[in-house]
Amino acid sequence: MTTAAAIIIGNEILTGKYRDENGPWLAVELRRLGVDLVRILTIPDEVDVIADAVRECTGLADCVFTSGGVGPTHDDVTFEGVAKGLGVPIVRNRGMAQAIRDKMGDDFTDDALRMADLPEGTVLHGSGIPVFVCQGVVILPGVPRYFKAKFAEYAPMLEGVPVQSRSIRCAARETTIASTLRAAAERWPQVDIGSYPRFEATPPHVIITVDSRDPSSLEQAHQWLQAQLGVES
Amino acid sequence: MTTAAAIIIGNEILTGKYRDENGPWLAVELRRLGVDLVRILTIPDEVDVIADAVRECTGLADCVFTSGGVGPTHDDVTFEGVAKGLGVPIVRNRGMAQAIRDKMGDDFTDDALRMADLPEGTVLHGSGIPVFVCQGVVILPGVPRYFKAKFAEYAPMLEGVPVQSRSIRCAARETTIASTLRAAAERWPQVDIGSYPRFEATPPHVIITVDSRDPSSLEQAHQWLQAQLGVES
Repeated sequence: MTTAAAIIIGNEILTGKYRDENGPWLAVELRRLGVDLVRILTIPDEVDVIADAVRECTGLADCVFTSGGVGPTHDDVTFEGVAKGLGVPIVRNRGMAQAIRDKMGDDFTDDALRMADLPEGTVLHGSGIPVFVCQGVVILPGVPRYFKAKFAEYAPMLEGVPVQSRSIRCAARETTIASTLRAAAERWPQVDIGSYPRFEATPPHVIITVDSRDPSSLEQAHQWLQAQLGVES
Repeated sequence: MTTAAAIIIGNEILTGKYRDENGPWLAVELRRLGVDLVRILTIPDEVDVIADAVRECTGLADCVFTSGGVGPTHDDVTFEGVAKGLGVPIVRNRGMAQAIRDKMGDDFTDDALRMADLPEGTVLHGSGIPVFVCQGVVILPGVPRYFKAKFAEYAPMLEGVPVQSRSIRCAARETTIASTLRAAAERWPQVDIGSYPRFEATPPHVIITVDSRDPSSLEQAHQWLQAQLGVES
């Protein structure tokens, strides 16, 4: 079973100029694939901050996705940050450099080669713009259309185990059902029980989610909660 | 000048069940108020993870906002996590306990008192449900409507210095303008220059943002870039 972390890189997100689409989209996709997303770090375009985030996330998860900072401009420092975090030098990838020259033709400038200066040991997956993978760090572009397309190319490499989920809608206050939920959480430790009040709904209610990779525990917990809470299935 | 970090707490965000609204909204609000948001950490409902995030963020920023995990159920562990991160015990706040009893009346249960068990030294701001503040950590509810309302109550305490911003739309590829942008970034270190390609637009173009708290540097960099890039103001 694979675990994942995401590093969303970009001053534009932290300054509110752009709303990050990639983190929320990745959360949904990883869930569907049965990969547990354990952290999302949203950080500025700074080499040392990226390096620290890479060290933290590679220690937490099997697979780390980065979003953004892979273009040719001065604020694109993801490759440098990942290299520093992994303790490897930046080396020019000759195949990538040639592909950039071929693709750009007359538009070619030396700045374009920044996209061929990769952390040592980086493996390129896929065609066109590749997915860059170095020691479990999967480096993806920040533009959502490309982020999604490149993730889709990489996704078959992930070994997920889907989580099964049930939900219960309960017309009660959280304070009156808290002890029941806690008892279920203690009785079925393999089951993750979430409680989400909808104060603003009419009438107000609570959505209880019951998730597990163990089908038997899931059904037991779900049925017990329905009975205790007086909710019909 | 105040800096801020945000900790978004909730398994429901990492599993893609709910899309976080509070982080992006906070980024826009803090920008408007002139407070630099340096990090957003999105983490699960786990005491030790929250404690680590609080330690990290209080070391990075003057003010740390948390979102979520302040209700009465077993998955609401933000107060414990913040207390552990700050190295203080949880103590029952008698005023808060009495307010909960008064408000809930016949619906009162002991579980409701979890919302009165606060990190030692927590100061309560505002009326109704208060804003909880402990050593620069501002604990806000996760439900967006309440997150926003409570942030608005706290916002006058922030000492921001607004950033001025210009943007330039340039019909060029990033590779051909990268050296110009880098030269400007080096010449005006007090100016933050961002480059955001819009491949999917018709015609494709790049949005260049020029931000600074120093009006003179901002205008110089903006005018120089317009001239170099052949863009009319």
